[in-house]
Amino acid sequence: MNIYDIAELAGVSIATVSRVVNDSPKVSEKTKAKVRAVMEEQNYTPNVFARGLGLNSMHTVGIVCPDVSDTYMANAVAYLEKYLRKYGYDCILSCSGYKYEDKVNAVQQILQKRIDALILVGSNYAGDGGNLDMDYLSQAAGEVPVFLMNGYIRCPGVYCVLSDGYQIVYDMVSELIESGRKRILFLYDSDSYSAKEKKRGYEEALRDNGLPVLEELEVFEQNKILKVLDTLLKRKQEDFDAVLATDDGLAVGALKYVKMMGRSVPQDVEIIGFNDSELAVCCDPELSSVDSRGELLCRTIVESMRQLLAGHSIRHKKVVPCRLVKRNTTN
Amino acid sequence: MNIYDIAELAGVSIATVSRVVNDSPKVSEKTKAKVRAVMEEQNYTPNVFARGLGLNSMHTVGIVCPDVSDTYMANAVAYLEKYLRKYGYDCILSCSGYKYEDKVNAVQQILQKRIDALILVGSNYAGDGGNLDMDYLSQAAGEVPVFLMNGYIRCPGVYCVLSDGYQIVYDMVSELIESGRKRILFLYDSDSYSAKEKKRGYEEALRDNGLPVLEELEVFEQNKILKVLDTLLKRKQEDFDAVLATDDGLAVGALKYVKMMGRSVPQDVEIIGFNDSELAVCCDPELSSVDSRGELLCRTIVESMRQLLAGHSIRHKKVVPCRLVKRNTTN
Repeated sequence: MNIYDIAELAGVSIATVSRVVNDSPKVSEKTKAKVRAVMEEQNYTPNVFARGLGLNSMHTVGIVCPDVSDTYMANAVAYLEKYLRKYGYDCILSCSGYKYEDKVNAVQQILQKRIDALILVGSNYAGDGGNLDMDYLSQAAGEVPVFLMNGYIRCPGVYCVLSDGYQIVYDMVSELIESGRKRILFLYDSDSYSAKEKKRGYEEALRDNGLPVLEELEVFEQNKILKVLDTLLKRKQEDFDAVLATDDGLAVGALKYVKMMGRSVPQDVEIIGFNDSELAVCCDPELSSVDSRGELLCRTIVESMRQLLAGHSIRHKKVVPCRLVKRNTTN
Repeated sequence: MNIYDIAELAGVSIATVSRVVNDSPKVSEKTKAKVRAVMEEQNYTPNVFARGLGLNSMHTVGIVCPDVSDTYMANAVAYLEKYLRKYGYDCILSCSGYKYEDKVNAVQQILQKRIDALILVGSNYAGDGGNLDMDYLSQAAGEVPVFLMNGYIRCPGVYCVLSDGYQIVYDMVSELIESGRKRILFLYDSDSYSAKEKKRGYEEALRDNGLPVLEELEVFEQNKILKVLDTLLKRKQEDFDAVLATDDGLAVGALKYVKMMGRSVPQDVEIIGFNDSELAVCCDPELSSVDSRGELLCRTIVESMRQLLAGHSIRHKKVVPCRLVKRNTTN
């Protein structure tokens, strides 16, 4: 039951239903009574976003991401823009950076524009700020519907569409262990919701397979290829036989290190990256990488947004499974 | 002499000067006469963009690029957004695709928004449509100032900021020839202004060094790494001793081919890419690549735009030199 159904049953336009919901003086008391009766009969609770429906839309959506020069985010913005444009929406883009204050600031600024919805790209908007995230996101959700790509926060008005990083990492690590790998290096690059979920998948797979979680085998490194190579060279910690990284850049750094140490991939060390980017086909040997389903997430976000703005109710959490794209760094 | 000078000399605000230029009824005839006298005295012709100055600004800039998932464009959009935001401008982003009709369409659509200026990223907006480009760009320039990043078209109201692809390619090819290379493969991926300039640099360097331009050594290939590898494998044309590519992805494709043929880099074949992207440090050996100065171009565009919108006149063409970032695929 949505605003269209109510309009049809009451024999009025959706604009009129919206006006009744907002108790506009432009609608006669008689019409108000009729529409309210239908709403009651149908047990219809107007969606908070149906309130302004169609009356005030600028057909503009705000997109905020930390850094559009990041490959994952650039692809996401490209897909979002494509699907939004297909339905006649313009995009206002804001790149917030990674710092908490800057993210809050970017979200507050973009809310001052007349936007129909807000899409936050990347899981950096949930998770690393702890309970603080809740505040600015729930505040934002009070003004427009907020869509979180690849992050999760339980909050009214925030809709999360994410890929199942926990499950794919759990599965990959379990397979590596089953094929005899014992010391699996985990490389991650943020404290975001998504990175934490992957870390949880890694640690639980180790535990469930009777292996200890060794903190020395977890490396947190933000600056991709050369930084990872550098860190590993400094630690001179050669004794891992597999690598799982939350980003292809991190994985390529590890690949360079392993080759430099004279060990062979995938015979001595198997390596798995994440996001299936251009880097995965650029390195040598080509990298097996998890396809985190960026295009599907973006399409799902835009379709969900349209349903919501049309007055339908949608789920607050949609999870999409990932899949491995096998190349030459795994057996 | 700009609108600020006129305002100061006439002892009125810039808003008043702008109103006089627009012959607004809100300004008294006496004030109009005074301002016009100063303008005449100073031989001041109001810039077309000074007409709406400060009165009607939305502090919003339109950015159009063919595809923001392309690394060069993603970086450009990130830098533009950063500098624009620094000065309080919002960005509306539109990804047009590469087809002529789609580009025209995207530009026309974004002009319907209230934007202060339009920035076109990538040289695909000038060059491959021939004289057709002139039409839609000059039409756009009649409404807002148009900035063309890394393209050039001679047209009132269009301001071009570009890197000197011709010169760097001419220099690199000349150096390769001087060091004994005789068959230099040229890989390019578009018919854009920028690609044409690089091609011209390649061909003129060959001619000036007494070598013939062999068309068999020019490969036009759009789909980067694996496509180039595929094309070279099909042609089985092994007899080149150097490669110059207009994009790192193309160069990596050639690198993979050369390695696959069992030849060594840089001993047997030297390879130079373009844009100094993450791919250049991802491949093995790491790729020497031309830094096409994306950040500097973006900063220059935003600074120029601010000057222009403040009523100053600016040059229609600014050229920035490129530089080689030497890694391990050249001697």
